[in-house]
Amino acid sequence: MNDRTDTRTGWLSIDELDLVRGRVPLVYVDAVPVQVDETGVVTHVGLLLRVKSDGTISRTVVSGRVLYGERVRDALLRHLDKDLGPVALPRLPTHPAPFTIIEYFPEPEVTGFHDPRQHAVSLAFVVPVDGDCQPSQDALDLAWLTPEEAVSAEVRREMTGGHDRLVRLALAHAGCLP
Amino acid sequence: MNDRTDTRTGWLSIDELDLVRGRVPLVYVDAVPVQVDETGVVTHVGLLLRVKSDGTISRTVVSGRVLYGERVRDALLRHLDKDLGPVALPRLPTHPAPFTIIEYFPEPEVTGFHDPRQHAVSLAFVVPVDGDCQPSQDALDLAWLTPEEAVSAEVRREMTGGHDRLVRLALAHAGCLP
Amino acid sequence: MNDRTDTRTGWLSIDELDLVRGRVPLVYVDAVPVQVDETGVVTHVGLLLRVKSDGTISRTVVSGRVLYGERVRDALLRHLDKDLGPVALPRLPTHPAPFTIIEYFPEPEVTGFHDPRQHAVSLAFVVPVDGDCQPSQDALDLAWLTPEEAVSAEVRREMTGGHDRLVRLALAHAGCLP
Amino acid sequence: MNDRTDTRTGWLSIDELDLVRGRVPLVYVDAVPVQVDETGVVTHVGLLLRVKSDGTISRTVVSGRVLYGERVRDALLRHLDKDLGPVALPRLPTHPAPFTIIEYFPEPEVTGFHDPRQHAVSLAFVVPVDGDCQPSQDALDLAWLTPEEAVSAEVRREMTGGHDRLVRLALAHAGCLP
Repeated sequence: MNDRTDTRTGWLSIDELDLVRGRVPLVYVDAVPVQVDETGVVTHVGLLLRVKSDGTISRTVVSGRVLYGERVRDALLRHLDKDLGPVALPRLPTHPAPFTIIEYFPEPEVTGFHDPRQHAVSLAFVVPVDGDCQPSQDALDLAWLTPEEAVSAEVRREMTGGHDRLVRLALAHAGCLP
Repeated sequence: MNDRTDTRTGWLSIDELDLVRGRVPLVYVDAVPVQVDETGVVTHVGLLLRVKSDGTISRTVVSGRVLYGERVRDALLRHLDKDLGPVALPRLPTHPAPFTIIEYFPEPEVTGFHDPRQHAVSLAFVVPVDGDCQPSQDALDLAWLTPEEAVSAEVRREMTGGHDRLVRLALAHAGCLP
Repeated sequence: MNDRTDTRTGWLSIDELDLVRGRVPLVYVDAVPVQVDETGVVTHVGLLLRVKSDGTISRTVVSGRVLYGERVRDALLRHLDKDLGPVALPRLPTHPAPFTIIEYFPEPEVTGFHDPRQHAVSLAFVVPVDGDCQPSQDALDLAWLTPEEAVSAEVRREMTGGHDRLVRLALAHAGCLP
Repeated sequence: MNDRTDTRTGWLSIDELDLVRGRVPLVYVDAVPVQVDETGVVTHVGLLLRVKSDGTISRTVVSGRVLYGERVRDALLRHLDKDLGPVALPRLPTHPAPFTIIEYFPEPEVTGFHDPRQHAVSLAFVVPVDGDCQPSQDALDLAWLTPEEAVSAEVRREMTGGHDRLVRLALAHAGCLP
């Protein structure tokens, strides 16, 4: 999860965000980018290679905050554009319901989903992308993995905060959890 | 619902189909074609103008049988191609779960969904289409209606067997039921 | 929607809530209480008769804020207990995904769902209740309506902020939108 | 999956069933029985210990055919009653949509879900049960396992036809896939 862009825009200063973070849960979106075949079957999952604020490197899905006054769909599109580049051509869902919600808590033990900075309720979506992805902003790379690779022990170890579970939940929803 | 193509293919003769129809529920798919904007919001619903077997004209969604040995996804794609033409570019869902199931019974009063020929359990999907639709086979026309138009009393009257309710369920799922 | 209880608890002062409200969307839950038969079919929808902050009376579903540090499930249970009484025996869903999300904006025209006080993203659930409901706190009464009654023009007129649409979306999800 | 009861009732003779089985996909339901806490979190999954037609023993979920003229909800209730006994008090879902569909093919490689007897399209549901389960008919025992136990390598090995994957998909839907 990454707020730098948001706070830079002036919609909310970093001080204000810190104040709010300790008082209410924030609304987030998580998008699991996928490639699909013509019948809609997920063939690959896209994972971003990212440098975290503590300097470590990890694989993540697309994730970010919903701003005041912003529709969830617009937040989804904004974060997908930011992380996958402007020609990724993401296919946003027609239905507003997320396939699951992820509750990130500052304490790792509440739900297993963990964000040391805040309590966030994240609406999670599986988003097929058709275009060329050019990972931008903070992301070093975007790797397309098969469902088998995405749930492998090796890849799991590179994901933190519960994102490895999020990927498994997404694959299960898509009917292709190995 | 329309089986002529299926039975013509030789996979099942009309006599055999009649025999089976009286003994088990058949598996169907219903697809509600939609046009969406870049954020995934449904802007239009596609309804086929069709001559029914009794000679009357009605508006319907894309609907048809799942064949022996055929995956549900392949049945969906086959019926969409058959009814909307080969360049409709339907976007099949990544998830295998239908947004609702429609239970058609020979008696109208069981569920309100009615097919005088058979008991069918239909998996219903909302399917965005990007390309040019060229209604083929039995369909006289394909009309794109706004959600408001699609639920209007006038259009409702042109739908039979409960398809007007199916359209409302689809719009509700997409969050745009007026 | 009603925050009085929450703010009274001391978790967040009214001033702090006002500050936060102008800066981020708040996380809410909406629960549509229903009675079901033994096969799970919704027979009745429960609507609360409530005095709104402007003195007018309206029908609403159960709705309220998710607090900092609170799981969505616990917020659901807390608001159901608060509004339906302690022996309503609500059956919370096993799945964390809401059937839809409702985006309330201070401006009525963005989504049609409207809350003059704030931008809220609400996770909406259909919740069967088995026990005796004793509407408490701010609610004058709880009426159980059939699906037909719940979508009637008369009842629609008694709902504000888009709650009439929320009820229709809930009934559609349950397969019993008339 | 078990058809003995169904065919015994006289609704369909075994010969007729054999005839139909080779011609159309059959409609099935799969129910994953679960125990939940008061907030709806799945604490245990119920797996039946069953002797299969080839004499081997395996763990399965509740599964069976939807009969001609039978609503899906009634089929669910009938199979739950048959397998868990008359006082299991299953809580059928309010929504008709399954959380996933399972496509069983005579060939194991099409979807990974396998039924040597037939092609079946199964609507899968997670069903909380409150009462006392008394496994009847063909089932030797019913074991309640934690999510961790239910996905363990040992329990997976005791499941065939893809039922181990079905259990993982159900736990993912419920947000508690380990």
